[in-house]
Amino acid sequence: MYVQMYDTTLRDGSQGEGVNFSLQDKLLITRKLDELGFDFIEGGYPLSNEKDTEYFQRVRDLDLKHAKVCAFGMTRRRGVGAEQDTGMLAIRDSKAPVCTIVGKTWDLHVTEVLRVDLEENLAMIRDSIAFLKAEGRTVFYDAEHFFDGFTANPEYALKTVQAAQDAGADVIVCCDTNGGSLPERIVKILSQVQKEIRTPLGIHCHNDCDLAVANSLAAVETGVIQVQGTINGIGERCGNVDLLSVAANLALKKSGYQVLTQGVGLTHLTELSRYVYELANMNFRSNQAFVGRSAFAHKGGMHVHAVNRFAHSYEHISPETVGNERRILVSELSGRSNIVAKTTKHKLDQDPEIMGAILARVQELENVGYQFEAAEASFDLLVKKVAGAYEPKFQRIHYRVNVETAGQGQPLTEATVKLKIDGEGPIRHEVAEGDGPVNALDQALRKALIGFYPRLAEMHLVDYKVRVINSTGGTAASVRVVIESADEKDVWSTIGVSENIIEASWLALVDAVEYKLFKDDGFLGK
Amino acid sequence: MYVQMYDTTLRDGSQGEGVNFSLQDKLLITRKLDELGFDFIEGGYPLSNEKDTEYFQRVRDLDLKHAKVCAFGMTRRRGVGAEQDTGMLAIRDSKAPVCTIVGKTWDLHVTEVLRVDLEENLAMIRDSIAFLKAEGRTVFYDAEHFFDGFTANPEYALKTVQAAQDAGADVIVCCDTNGGSLPERIVKILSQVQKEIRTPLGIHCHNDCDLAVANSLAAVETGVIQVQGTINGIGERCGNVDLLSVAANLALKKSGYQVLTQGVGLTHLTELSRYVYELANMNFRSNQAFVGRSAFAHKGGMHVHAVNRFAHSYEHISPETVGNERRILVSELSGRSNIVAKTTKHKLDQDPEIMGAILARVQELENVGYQFEAAEASFDLLVKKVAGAYEPKFQRIHYRVNVETAGQGQPLTEATVKLKIDGEGPIRHEVAEGDGPVNALDQALRKALIGFYPRLAEMHLVDYKVRVINSTGGTAASVRVVIESADEKDVWSTIGVSENIIEASWLALVDAVEYKLFKDDGFLGK
Repeated sequence: MYVQMYDTTLRDGSQGEGVNFSLQDKLLITRKLDELGFDFIEGGYPLSNEKDTEYFQRVRDLDLKHAKVCAFGMTRRRGVGAEQDTGMLAIRDSKAPVCTIVGKTWDLHVTEVLRVDLEENLAMIRDSIAFLKAEGRTVFYDAEHFFDGFTANPEYALKTVQAAQDAGADVIVCCDTNGGSLPERIVKILSQVQKEIRTPLGIHCHNDCDLAVANSLAAVETGVIQVQGTINGIGERCGNVDLLSVAANLALKKSGYQVLTQGVGLTHLTELSRYVYELANMNFRSNQAFVGRSAFAHKGGMHVHAVNRFAHSYEHISPETVGNERRILVSELSGRSNIVAKTTKHKLDQDPEIMGAILARVQELENVGYQFEAAEASFDLLVKKVAGAYEPKFQRIHYRVNVETAGQGQPLTEATVKLKIDGEGPIRHEVAEGDGPVNALDQALRKALIGFYPRLAEMHLVDYKVRVINSTGGTAASVRVVIESADEKDVWSTIGVSENIIEASWLALVDAVEYKLFKDDGFLGK
Repeated sequence: MYVQMYDTTLRDGSQGEGVNFSLQDKLLITRKLDELGFDFIEGGYPLSNEKDTEYFQRVRDLDLKHAKVCAFGMTRRRGVGAEQDTGMLAIRDSKAPVCTIVGKTWDLHVTEVLRVDLEENLAMIRDSIAFLKAEGRTVFYDAEHFFDGFTANPEYALKTVQAAQDAGADVIVCCDTNGGSLPERIVKILSQVQKEIRTPLGIHCHNDCDLAVANSLAAVETGVIQVQGTINGIGERCGNVDLLSVAANLALKKSGYQVLTQGVGLTHLTELSRYVYELANMNFRSNQAFVGRSAFAHKGGMHVHAVNRFAHSYEHISPETVGNERRILVSELSGRSNIVAKTTKHKLDQDPEIMGAILARVQELENVGYQFEAAEASFDLLVKKVAGAYEPKFQRIHYRVNVETAGQGQPLTEATVKLKIDGEGPIRHEVAEGDGPVNALDQALRKALIGFYPRLAEMHLVDYKVRVINSTGGTAASVRVVIESADEKDVWSTIGVSENIIEASWLALVDAVEYKLFKDDGFLGK
């Protein structure tokens, strides 16, 4: 059975705290979802703002291959004909081929929140759908609070979806709006509805009980043909169901279901996940199922040994099937087998002398507090250095950071950096201010390098983490700094350790910059 | 039915990427889990390292109210008597009342990874459990890869758990080690096992399919008496099941189950979540089910309006039941009950005007990134300040920090501090060097104060943690510093937030010193 994937990242997902897509972001995500074979893309709420109105104009130029764009809106207001309701007209004028209309199921919401009588609510549902059907659109009906409403008053809840059916809705989507349902309730209620309603059903879950994926899969088992959700599960409160997990589970873990068959499909799910995070300016969730950076990461000598011998002994699926990759974390818990596995991409595993030298260097650095599991870029640079394949891009002659304050005001921070470029190159001596000492150093370093390495402008810092290592030493203890950097294509992490937080930050910054430059040169053996 | 909560945050959780608990962290988490009523706390793997060995010594002094501490280990090595196996002896010598032994279920793992024959694996299981039972311990048997193993070779899988039963295991825990199972498989296999095995069963799930909570709940429905998992679902790859979600669902969403009945329970789950994140130096996941900061956050005018009118129309549970709070994103209205609870020791709760002022100040500071959950000393000082019961011990006139380096050597760090003591007192202007900027500041501050406040010599810094708050800003983002200090009697934590890490550290340092001085004066209402 083919299960339709209905993505509402751009509408319901953007209700999430801190989520805000520009018009350009929305168009880019629409194109990407279409390439992967998503069936429906809910682009926005035409009445709500100009950005959404413009989205529906611009999206027509995208020439989508498979996906249908959907405009979202509420049923008409009370006491107004649908043809006079501004919301209805905005949906019509969006020219979206699919219109998704949300209406009230729960009698309490009808009478107490909306404050209309129960019959008028049924008329609002019928009129709104009938109006858009008469305009020739495909209409999906989102039954808000369906499971709570059905539990409170099953008879009225059924009347609302019967009204939607009578008016010609193409799919009736049962929404667990508050996210409070468990799979057994979803199954029980959908089975009852299927006895009364012949229109195909869909499911729309939120993750407030940490069960949105389970609920959506349970709904599919009862026969619903459409799953609504968002990429990475972004959305209000605890988010919508993560469509990536739903698609991967349906395609790979259950038999008899197909998804995304019209696009490049599953093997791009990881790329899609990161693309959406990047455009939403959100941090990746490294432990995210299927697509997270840690989802196929192995730590601990025994595991790694076994994974190398036969992968499926420690992996529930092959990471490539969802476009992810296996990662062998280098850590104190692990032995030689980890390092061998990690250096295969450098094609060094045939040289036992270099392997021994890398191991020795890793152990030496781990003894002073380095941890390469979260700093693979620094590890790759280390391999280059030990293997003699490394030429520094610049050499530090000097740096200085000064933080100075009077009274209770914010301190002034200034950093100077003096470098020799590329071994034989010129000397650059630059100064910059910053919000703090690391920012000031970063600014001064970029100022010194950008003229020679203009591609550094593509790179930005994503995260900066500090950890005191032997914490019994208090502020005199060693400090581990991990910096995560990104450009348009990649994300990489680098590490520095020192008793001095400034020096530790400097070391991580320098690795971050060098990794970017080596990566662009194609010198990292990937 | 009472369902046992078995927490393995300190062992399996610490396998998560970037998770690293100090000994002190582990003891603090143990105490907190005990207070909340968790039944079993897996503290570590006694053979693996000195920290875990010391943990089992130190944990005996904690005088836990309800929880039992568990030592984890593998079955004996092949061809060695259990009484001669170093792992077995380490577990015995940990003196932990509960020993959890993991063994192989999957024939493929036995012959290909472990490389022992199938009969020897059964003997290893039997001998290991029998040895620890003879020592008078409670023994839980973790059947690794149980569901994969049972699917591959049900007959052999059953033999392994029969061996565990024969040897006297108190609970047999079926582990979905690779996290690849769906609820229907969990239910089907457990139901088959229950026909053959009379020993009570437990469940141990990983989240690789985004279904760990659903799988654990499904297992409980089949009759398992114990759920193993971690706080916040930390753990290798996609993590273990989040015990917070399991406990909340069992207690609040399903009928007929009890959890955590021996402790302060559910209403502290949110506090526990944040406490563990803080000690693990990890970022909170704001959309986390039940306990996330956004879990009950309402955005969008209609929702907020409705939520204000009758809360359950848009909330699946009342946030207070899990110690969380409703947040209205337009105007932060958080935490009155928390604050009332936290200020009771200051005997201020009778004064609504001061309470209101404290609330306002906390909200203002939380908006710029303060979090008082893990910085109660700073909170106590804040209460004093707002209540007008605060006289600063010194006033800063000026500080300066300079970090300077040449070439690849360690930088030189110097800090100067200029203070006015005690309002009217003399001016002190001191300079000190340090291993890093914060250490240098600390040294200079102490040098300036010690002549007036000699008891500062009793105090030392225990831990120093740094977190970037809006980490998408990279090094230009705000920084939160938490400093943990101790003297012979107490441990206290203080916080500072600034765009500048030096300033944030200064603020936390000053609070740490002031707290020490007020505490010794008996002015903190404790």
